[in-house]
Amino acid sequence: MKIALAQLNYKVGDFDGNTQKMLDYVQKAKQENADLVVFSELSVCGYPPLDFLENRDFIQRTEKSIRAIAKVCQGITAIVGAPVLNPNAKGKKLFNSALVLRNGKIENKVNKTLLPTYDIFDEYRYFEPNTEFKSIEIDGYKIALTICEDLWDDQPVENSFAQSKLYTVSPLQRLNDQFDLIINIAASPFSTLQSDTRKQVLINNAKRYQKPLVYVNQTAANTELIFDGQSMFIDAKGTVLYQLKQFEEDFVVIDTKTEQQAQLPCSFTEIESVYQAIKLGLSDYFKKMGFSKAVLGLSGGIDSAVVATIAVQVLGKKNVVGLLMPSKFSSDHSITDAVDLAKNLGIEHHIISIKEAVSAFDSTLMPVFDGTEFGIAEENIQARIRGTLLMAYSNKFGHILLNTSNKSEAAVGYSTLYGDMNGGLSILGDVYKTKVFELANWLNRDHEIIPRNTIVKPPSAELRPDQKDSDSLPDYDILDQILVRYIEKKESIQNIIDAGFEETTVKRTVLMVNRNEYKRFQSPPILRITGKAFGMGRRMPLVAKYDF
Amino acid sequence: MKIALAQLNYKVGDFDGNTQKMLDYVQKAKQENADLVVFSELSVCGYPPLDFLENRDFIQRTEKSIRAIAKVCQGITAIVGAPVLNPNAKGKKLFNSALVLRNGKIENKVNKTLLPTYDIFDEYRYFEPNTEFKSIEIDGYKIALTICEDLWDDQPVENSFAQSKLYTVSPLQRLNDQFDLIINIAASPFSTLQSDTRKQVLINNAKRYQKPLVYVNQTAANTELIFDGQSMFIDAKGTVLYQLKQFEEDFVVIDTKTEQQAQLPCSFTEIESVYQAIKLGLSDYFKKMGFSKAVLGLSGGIDSAVVATIAVQVLGKKNVVGLLMPSKFSSDHSITDAVDLAKNLGIEHHIISIKEAVSAFDSTLMPVFDGTEFGIAEENIQARIRGTLLMAYSNKFGHILLNTSNKSEAAVGYSTLYGDMNGGLSILGDVYKTKVFELANWLNRDHEIIPRNTIVKPPSAELRPDQKDSDSLPDYDILDQILVRYIEKKESIQNIIDAGFEETTVKRTVLMVNRNEYKRFQSPPILRITGKAFGMGRRMPLVAKYDF
Repeated sequence: MKIALAQLNYKVGDFDGNTQKMLDYVQKAKQENADLVVFSELSVCGYPPLDFLENRDFIQRTEKSIRAIAKVCQGITAIVGAPVLNPNAKGKKLFNSALVLRNGKIENKVNKTLLPTYDIFDEYRYFEPNTEFKSIEIDGYKIALTICEDLWDDQPVENSFAQSKLYTVSPLQRLNDQFDLIINIAASPFSTLQSDTRKQVLINNAKRYQKPLVYVNQTAANTELIFDGQSMFIDAKGTVLYQLKQFEEDFVVIDTKTEQQAQLPCSFTEIESVYQAIKLGLSDYFKKMGFSKAVLGLSGGIDSAVVATIAVQVLGKKNVVGLLMPSKFSSDHSITDAVDLAKNLGIEHHIISIKEAVSAFDSTLMPVFDGTEFGIAEENIQARIRGTLLMAYSNKFGHILLNTSNKSEAAVGYSTLYGDMNGGLSILGDVYKTKVFELANWLNRDHEIIPRNTIVKPPSAELRPDQKDSDSLPDYDILDQILVRYIEKKESIQNIIDAGFEETTVKRTVLMVNRNEYKRFQSPPILRITGKAFGMGRRMPLVAKYDF
Repeated sequence: MKIALAQLNYKVGDFDGNTQKMLDYVQKAKQENADLVVFSELSVCGYPPLDFLENRDFIQRTEKSIRAIAKVCQGITAIVGAPVLNPNAKGKKLFNSALVLRNGKIENKVNKTLLPTYDIFDEYRYFEPNTEFKSIEIDGYKIALTICEDLWDDQPVENSFAQSKLYTVSPLQRLNDQFDLIINIAASPFSTLQSDTRKQVLINNAKRYQKPLVYVNQTAANTELIFDGQSMFIDAKGTVLYQLKQFEEDFVVIDTKTEQQAQLPCSFTEIESVYQAIKLGLSDYFKKMGFSKAVLGLSGGIDSAVVATIAVQVLGKKNVVGLLMPSKFSSDHSITDAVDLAKNLGIEHHIISIKEAVSAFDSTLMPVFDGTEFGIAEENIQARIRGTLLMAYSNKFGHILLNTSNKSEAAVGYSTLYGDMNGGLSILGDVYKTKVFELANWLNRDHEIIPRNTIVKPPSAELRPDQKDSDSLPDYDILDQILVRYIEKKESIQNIIDAGFEETTVKRTVLMVNRNEYKRFQSPPILRITGKAFGMGRRMPLVAKYDF
């Protein structure tokens, strides 16, 4: 059987756009003589639809799109993903379904069994799990049609507890080998570890059941989540014969009878994949929201330099504006480094001193602040003046403000709420500071874009005289290791200390993380890069006793 | 049997505090000769623990607390709620359990079957559902021990779809009448409709099974969620014999053999219950976070007046500071109304003009803004200067900034991000503007606290000359009705128009709601008052096509 793998970029709720795209690809698959074209999970409505699913209109629009796609399925079969009404009188009202469209109608339907409800996933919020197991037939082939997590029945519980399996049911096992081919339609988000894990899970399934496997993932970014594609065809021995591109739309027609190994695309190094993920996340945010122009503050530091560089590569240099907003505490190199960067990038930039605004606040607050010493309040005023200037520029000219915080500072709260935490999107909020340095060097791999001085000088917020990050924080290479253990691996404080980190440093770091939940609560959306990003995938109580 | 109902206020993660409180109440129950003392759902660790549950330390601390409580259970039995490790090799690693403690040990255990995973609930994120059904025996009584949602098996799917039941299993039905008494331990949050619905669900269960029912809810606010108590004892005919207080800790020992009707506390009117809920929400936020002082901006408008009044009633007048921050667009009455309010409340207040800061921004931005007209950018600068002054005061003196936005403006985005949207907690963010007026009048019921002029004058943001809310928004009585239908009832646009609202007004309102998801994404936590609050219970995609 010839199967077309359509790895596409969908927009949530864009029924006209998604449907037209799917119609075009059914056509393309026909032209290439495919018997079957496979689209990804919830492709009709876009993934993740979240609470749109509670809306009757949304489901009716989905049904209308399905009918439109079914109509063109003549002489070809299509598998599409969509939320489908549960006809039973009891249970959640929707299934997360894979629909088999042929001869103008829905010929068959399989519902998702394993509903991920952890980290960024909320599927049990909306869907009733499937409890009926059957293979479906297409062109004489018996197919085990599954949806994403359905192949992850063997995964361990993801936490600091003893090894155990997350799921009690295995959809493929329940089919008792009554199939010739496994098809999996997915919406599997990127993280730096996910790509290898995912491939291994798929290979394991092909091997365990000794059946070829067709896997179709979407490639798209929707707010925080980045889906990276890498759809594939694996033979019954577990060899990957075809692999589609990462972070790009792609399309291929495979023949299930193929035995020859096809050319696989070269895969990205870790730092390249971080870059590509951010690029897609930023690009889709702008495209899907209808924005074209961005503004950001250029401090002369590494975070804003990396954000500006990626923004230029995604949006074009004509569409990025940098504001340099020196204060009396700014060192000369802050300005010269930022100007050098702006020149290297060829972007519009303005130097707007905050001195006058700072004096205005000083004199305005004099009656209430008189007799107090310079402190956090005065530091934050500077950051908030900058935040207000950037938002003023954004409001005036329609440029979207890019947030430049990194994950290390978001973790320990080394940032000013309503100041440098402002922005429509945080593109480095899931990238640790040490990784930001790696990114900077990688961006400079061919020639210097980010001034060398920006990379080598000690990081500083410059909100008071001669301030350095290292005055208040552990060195970033230590800090980041502790953060990974505490946030991503959920290790206990004792475990981290036992691993060789200094007790006071560990306790101070954890305390900073816990005390700053309230800041992160009001953070812009953060592009998810790691297995545990701040945002929808990490839900910590704000009012609580964080004890250790 | 004599059963003590312990309706208490727990803090998430505060094992020492929660355990001590429970030990005290076991003692108290013993003194009053109770055979059994019942605590609420997840009482040992506090509800909702959220992702703390993924932390091994957190579960070990829970286990330690359980042992400490079991130790004092000599001559008395206690039922406590706690997350308990799932010993099976497959499935989520925790159960949401009710533990029967007696003679120093865990004598029995029942796990929760129905795991709410909708609106603000995420229980399937953490817990494996129970599949074994048995009644337990205490002092010769066969008891159907259930946890909160377990009695809600009959509830409809909550949405705009055709009537159907949310759950496929009924825990009580599965017990085949093999019980004498129903006990339900709960963590059921307040909303304006919940109290009546909940009582009816409990009465229906007592009636259906013709068994008496003991219900113990917590009373506590944890960040957004407010739990209002109202624990009760219902006889086998469905008559409520005892009802504990709403929004307060309470304790009573009932005798299951009682047939006489006891005194029920008078229940609150709707507006009183909104007030009481906000009071508990605000009070617990401060107490549990260790804060005592608040600051807020006083604009002379009704929202800030209501927030200031409630803050004074919760925190005391010595702990509330108001900043009046007039601009050149402020009318005289803004100042006089705000000063009158501050005097009526007896709070410290400062008049800090923003004129100088506005001029500083004007001249600072002149090089880039020259030749442009006064618009949204300039309006927002004023709001952001005020937000910065309030945060400066907060940072300098340790006062927590109270946000004063209401639900109507949060819904349509009639507010400035990083300006008047600033704050540690939004106490009116789930209260529609028309309800804010009701609250103001109710607060003035005995004598004028909120100046009459604040209540009767047309609402205005005063960010440009002679601005009125009604310039950009429909009248609030129309707007609020449309918002309730769209946000809470999830009605389609067509339905709302069919209900008699003007098409252009409906479409404009819905468009404003949809376009402002990005602002709400960065909102402070909002005390939940209605069945559908902005925040954790409403998860809309930010990047999406919102079509109609």
